Amino acid sequence: MSKADPIEVIEFLSRFLTERRKTLINDVLQQRTRYLTVVLEDIFRAQNASAVLRTCECQGIQDVHIIENNHLYEVNPDVVKGAAKWLTLIKYPQCDIDNTPICFSDLRSNGYQIVGADPKGDLSMEKLAIDKPIALVFGTEFHGLSDSAKNGVDHLVAIPMYGFTESYNLSVSAAICLESITSRLRQSSIDWALSKNEINELKLEWYKGQVRDADNLILRHFDKT
Amino acid sequence: MSKADPIEVIEFLSRFLTERRKTLINDVLQQRTRYLTVVLEDIFRAQNASAVLRTCECQGIQDVHIIENNHLYEVNPDVVKGAAKWLTLIKYPQCDIDNTPICFSDLRSNGYQIVGADPKGDLSMEKLAIDKPIALVFGTEFHGLSDSAKNGVDHLVAIPMYGFTESYNLSVSAAICLESITSRLRQSSIDWALSKNEINELKLEWYKGQVRDADNLILRHFDKT
Repeated sequence: MSKADPIEVIEFLSRFLTERRKTLINDVLQQRTRYLTVVLEDIFRAQNASAVLRTCECQGIQDVHIIENNHLYEVNPDVVKGAAKWLTLIKYPQCDIDNTPICFSDLRSNGYQIVGADPKGDLSMEKLAIDKPIALVFGTEFHGLSDSAKNGVDHLVAIPMYGFTESYNLSVSAAICLESITSRLRQSSIDWALSKNEINELKLEWYKGQVRDADNLILRHFDKT
Repeated sequence: MSKADPIEVIEFLSRFLTERRKTLINDVLQQRTRYLTVVLEDIFRAQNASAVLRTCECQGIQDVHIIENNHLYEVNPDVVKGAAKWLTLIKYPQCDIDNTPICFSDLRSNGYQIVGADPKGDLSMEKLAIDKPIALVFGTEFHGLSDSAKNGVDHLVAIPMYGFTESYNLSVSAAICLESITSRLRQSSIDWALSKNEINELKLEWYKGQVRDADNLILRHFDKT
């Protein structure tokens, strides 16, 4: 792989993209955030995992952490609608140890507060403090968060419910929580946007994904010059 | 069927229910609303229809109108989690004519403004006036609202999106829209609750559903007295 400067590579690849495409990518990048990130613990219904990824992409959330303790993570291409290719998926694959504390520890060292979504949570979404980056954790469809997750979070938030049904569908619950936080963030003065470096890294990755045979083109171009 | 007074029947059936059950039913009834209602036009994925019903039940929305023009409506029992039995489903079954205008006309004669959800809608959810009862219409997974629905609504609302994906998953979109309206309603001074009569009608229906062989018990009791 060529060691060319990323900015130059972006510049080079941009020749192969339409103005409309470049504008769209730029607009999306301005709205992207890592201030809020999502953690999916052991989701096993492809339909649900896919709908959550699609919601994240729509709302500008870049990173999704996928913990596979007992279930392999799969998506339903019909539901995810290509959203996954625009996201950064950080996987904690099935192994002998409990991945949840490992994931939480990674997140904490990156400055996140860890917030679990749970119908029995004692904090309402609106009362959750957003002055620190948030990792929002969702558990499995049947059992919710694992004990290890419940013990590891800083807060447990709940969405108010007014009927007989005791929980929302997983992808619905994620959507309501994420919409609540992102809309508060967008109205706040908090600096939730990506840094210049992060924007360039993603732009390079996305440009490469948009240009056919990009790696070879880059190699040929930059080795010549 | 006995012609006994509904209040007396409720009183009679209440002997067969635990205090906890009665309190729960009462609490749910106080939170129920017909001020906001949902219309599902031709939804064909059982998973989506079911998740929407579950969301409605959780949020206290009593009535759901189901238009079957090209697709029969089905639910996925695993997703709906029993929510459907607590809802009033008003069906417009498949026939030779377009059911959408018929449904809209029924709703209008009951005082509703008709609002369609559409990614290209020109009104944001927060700007939607809630001073008049709202029927919120969702279209099929692939094509969205039919032309007949788009022409028949008073407003088209959209949820802001910040990514590449051009629409939310149907059940996600419904959840975000409904949560937005119900939380505004609950914070407002608008009289969105059911009337005393409506509460008693539903209570009677729900009590009957909770007591085994209720119709026979009622018949025997009130024919004796």
